[in-house]
Amino acid sequence: MSWKINTVGKKSDIDQIKNPVLIEGLPGIGNVGKIAADFLVDELKAVKVYEIFSYKMPHSVFVNEKNLVELPSLEIYYKKSKKQDILFLVGDIQPIDEESNYEFCDTVLDLFEKHKGKEIITLGGIGLKSVPEVPKVYCTANNLKIIERYKKGSQLNDKIYGVVGPIVGVSGLLVGLSKKRNIEAIAILAETYGHPMYLGIKGAREIVTILNKKLDLNVKIEDLDKEIKEIESEIKKAESMNTKKLQSSLKKIKFKDTNYIG
Amino acid sequence: MSWKINTVGKKSDIDQIKNPVLIEGLPGIGNVGKIAADFLVDELKAVKVYEIFSYKMPHSVFVNEKNLVELPSLEIYYKKSKKQDILFLVGDIQPIDEESNYEFCDTVLDLFEKHKGKEIITLGGIGLKSVPEVPKVYCTANNLKIIERYKKGSQLNDKIYGVVGPIVGVSGLLVGLSKKRNIEAIAILAETYGHPMYLGIKGAREIVTILNKKLDLNVKIEDLDKEIKEIESEIKKAESMNTKKLQSSLKKIKFKDTNYIG
Amino acid sequence: MSWKINTVGKKSDIDQIKNPVLIEGLPGIGNVGKIAADFLVDELKAVKVYEIFSYKMPHSVFVNEKNLVELPSLEIYYKKSKKQDILFLVGDIQPIDEESNYEFCDTVLDLFEKHKGKEIITLGGIGLKSVPEVPKVYCTANNLKIIERYKKGSQLNDKIYGVVGPIVGVSGLLVGLSKKRNIEAIAILAETYGHPMYLGIKGAREIVTILNKKLDLNVKIEDLDKEIKEIESEIKKAESMNTKKLQSSLKKIKFKDTNYIG
Amino acid sequence: MSWKINTVGKKSDIDQIKNPVLIEGLPGIGNVGKIAADFLVDELKAVKVYEIFSYKMPHSVFVNEKNLVELPSLEIYYKKSKKQDILFLVGDIQPIDEESNYEFCDTVLDLFEKHKGKEIITLGGIGLKSVPEVPKVYCTANNLKIIERYKKGSQLNDKIYGVVGPIVGVSGLLVGLSKKRNIEAIAILAETYGHPMYLGIKGAREIVTILNKKLDLNVKIEDLDKEIKEIESEIKKAESMNTKKLQSSLKKIKFKDTNYIG
Repeated sequence: MSWKINTVGKKSDIDQIKNPVLIEGLPGIGNVGKIAADFLVDELKAVKVYEIFSYKMPHSVFVNEKNLVELPSLEIYYKKSKKQDILFLVGDIQPIDEESNYEFCDTVLDLFEKHKGKEIITLGGIGLKSVPEVPKVYCTANNLKIIERYKKGSQLNDKIYGVVGPIVGVSGLLVGLSKKRNIEAIAILAETYGHPMYLGIKGAREIVTILNKKLDLNVKIEDLDKEIKEIESEIKKAESMNTKKLQSSLKKIKFKDTNYIG
Repeated sequence: MSWKINTVGKKSDIDQIKNPVLIEGLPGIGNVGKIAADFLVDELKAVKVYEIFSYKMPHSVFVNEKNLVELPSLEIYYKKSKKQDILFLVGDIQPIDEESNYEFCDTVLDLFEKHKGKEIITLGGIGLKSVPEVPKVYCTANNLKIIERYKKGSQLNDKIYGVVGPIVGVSGLLVGLSKKRNIEAIAILAETYGHPMYLGIKGAREIVTILNKKLDLNVKIEDLDKEIKEIESEIKKAESMNTKKLQSSLKKIKFKDTNYIG
Repeated sequence: MSWKINTVGKKSDIDQIKNPVLIEGLPGIGNVGKIAADFLVDELKAVKVYEIFSYKMPHSVFVNEKNLVELPSLEIYYKKSKKQDILFLVGDIQPIDEESNYEFCDTVLDLFEKHKGKEIITLGGIGLKSVPEVPKVYCTANNLKIIERYKKGSQLNDKIYGVVGPIVGVSGLLVGLSKKRNIEAIAILAETYGHPMYLGIKGAREIVTILNKKLDLNVKIEDLDKEIKEIESEIKKAESMNTKKLQSSLKKIKFKDTNYIG
Repeated sequence: MSWKINTVGKKSDIDQIKNPVLIEGLPGIGNVGKIAADFLVDELKAVKVYEIFSYKMPHSVFVNEKNLVELPSLEIYYKKSKKQDILFLVGDIQPIDEESNYEFCDTVLDLFEKHKGKEIITLGGIGLKSVPEVPKVYCTANNLKIIERYKKGSQLNDKIYGVVGPIVGVSGLLVGLSKKRNIEAIAILAETYGHPMYLGIKGAREIVTILNKKLDLNVKIEDLDKEIKEIESEIKKAESMNTKKLQSSLKKIKFKDTNYIG
């Protein structure tokens, strides 16, 4: 297998993982999924338990806020929450090509089955041609039952046919490949502006709100709202600068210790 | 081998497959081949007998009309028809690269030989710079005899040299690789408008008409004509909308349960 | 090894191959090398002795003048000539990527060594921004001695440093990899117009003239001149047509039974 | 392993290599790292000890100033200097893709560990939108201690977060992968003009100045200054010519026997 999972968490943490829900949020359209998942990992103080490594990652490194080099990361965090255990699949990158994407997803699903995982939620964005006022959140899944469960009492819209084209990358494949293993999986996708420089924070906020409610996470959405305000003021300042400065300024925007790919 | 064929049909169906003709229609120029093959599978109520899977497929999933996620599909359907048995090779995608295309075709040819297949017909489009009034249908093959057989009494034009450039993908390779195994194979290609958003339904119609006659299929071309009318009215309506809506509208056009890659 | 050499010539032919010179002419800038090598194969009535096949070729087929499909070809022809034996490496394509190019060249060099080959000549073009009146012919090699031998009494210019950038593909790699095996190899490159639709026949003519003299080939350059005239008149006619017709017309230009990639 | 290291130096040289510092300078932005490393190899009369070869290199050859063909090179030079042993990793190219970049770096790190290497310095450029008057030199590393050591008494700026995006290729990966082996590694990056034709000689000069001091190399910066003057006059002359001549002229600029990729 071209993907290697390294255990970095304490044995005691890992041993108690029980029927977890897996939430995936990797880079993608507007980085919506990544922003939402990173925020949850941070707010819930989830613990890193696994690092995933492969030669099938981008051949570049990031400079973090300590001015140190970091290899591209794909990591799994663990949170024992009130309602149930949660694993978060987060990171800086997507696998480099088609084949390595399939291999990566099957590697993650093997781990998920080892922990007798319950269900999978993948997060992502739907790129619009303009900034949505209040982003709508859609879902699709490999099974009607999981859609019903997540729709119940939430703003999730399941009339997604014709709204999105193919769902590219891990968010789509995880759901598709789960079906072959009889794992229920749902993709939750929020509208965002499709511009490559746009950060889909508002879309991420809508997703967090839904997950917060459905999974009884008890995170403070206000923390995210505060971050959104800070970022917007940061951007407003940056807009009066030239493009180069704007880019640099946007690069400095982070959700805790995660860097965004420019 | 990087391609795996999974048997999904009943053993009783598969056991009776006898010297089948294989008809291939996968995505390509104007989706002409796909439209024609999907229509025949549907009209003839052909039965799915095989699914083909590999990591060498696009790393994306489709949302179907039930709002559920589906992995890219490559499937073989079976129809016992009056004149002879037919296998249909249909699907959403082409293999991702050169090598996987060769591997895929050889995997299909192995299966074809296992069933002591008779001959192979691949379907496709020839992209023009404008919409053809009545699309001409050309053929080329790995053998003059099969050309003569299919030309006889049909509108097939075999003066294709200089009309097409290289034939890319499964439609071409299946014919080329068949020769190495002494399998007669013909490619039937209809003119269509080369624009990436254009659906080559009229070209597909001409191909269906020829196959209907040559293979005694007894399908009602009027059903296809009706679908063409519906789609044209759908498009006319869509044209008064903006491009985004048009795209979305075109995505909803389907031949039964098949989605088109946008 | 990903490249397979199939023997298609008579054993009696192959057994008598003795210390051959290998001349390579595959598609490239202006197809100069391909045109020159194909012309020589034809004029010298060289015999096909090997076909080379791999999944590392473009996944497309060509339609030949008999309206039949042909897989991409990579072939070796053999000619016993007055001065010495010659093998011609000709075909429709180059291997698809970097790695397969290296593998292909090493496969060819293994065969060359099996026949105790003497030296290697690769042919190609140097793309200019306009049509050269009389194309100059340059050479470079893996060894100064072979340059001296081929320069002697010919119009070959060996002051090529700074005239060309990297030499991409088989013409370059064969020369470079030969050095590791202590095989003398020279690349002979003629100026041509760098436009993708331009056929470098005049450049090819200059190369043929040099090889004719240095290798005592005794081919009639007038035959090539006649072909050039025909093609030029063909093109002049075509120029009064629209672009599509011109392309189609250019596609019909062939040197015997070889098709050009559009 | 897809990369093969061939020993080309004398056994006596190789046997005495002791706890070397490895300095890497391969092609990249403005070729800053390559220029600096090539200059040092030349000034210090370092000896070639290893050649690295693979099919995962560009499939093209270069023509050197002797008008001879050379395969792309990746080489390691050795210099016993006053303060400590140095290995230089230099060459014409970077590995062709993501996976081969990881494989290459791990191959180099294996060799480095075999020689009980001390630390690694990678060199590169930071592309600006205009020519910097006096290029600033930044650093990042896999460890704060090595940053402190190199900053002490030098002009190195370690506030690089937000100044660069991802560091692509060997310069970044070597630092990132070193961390997994507990090897201290630092990347030293000088500002340069980001234009693809611009040679980052001034940035290279700043890097050389820093290394000269920190590693007690005792090279004459004036030699590099002289070369810079020559090149600038060369370019000034070239600017009055047409673009083609300019390119050709720039190609002739070399640091000893190294060719630049155009």
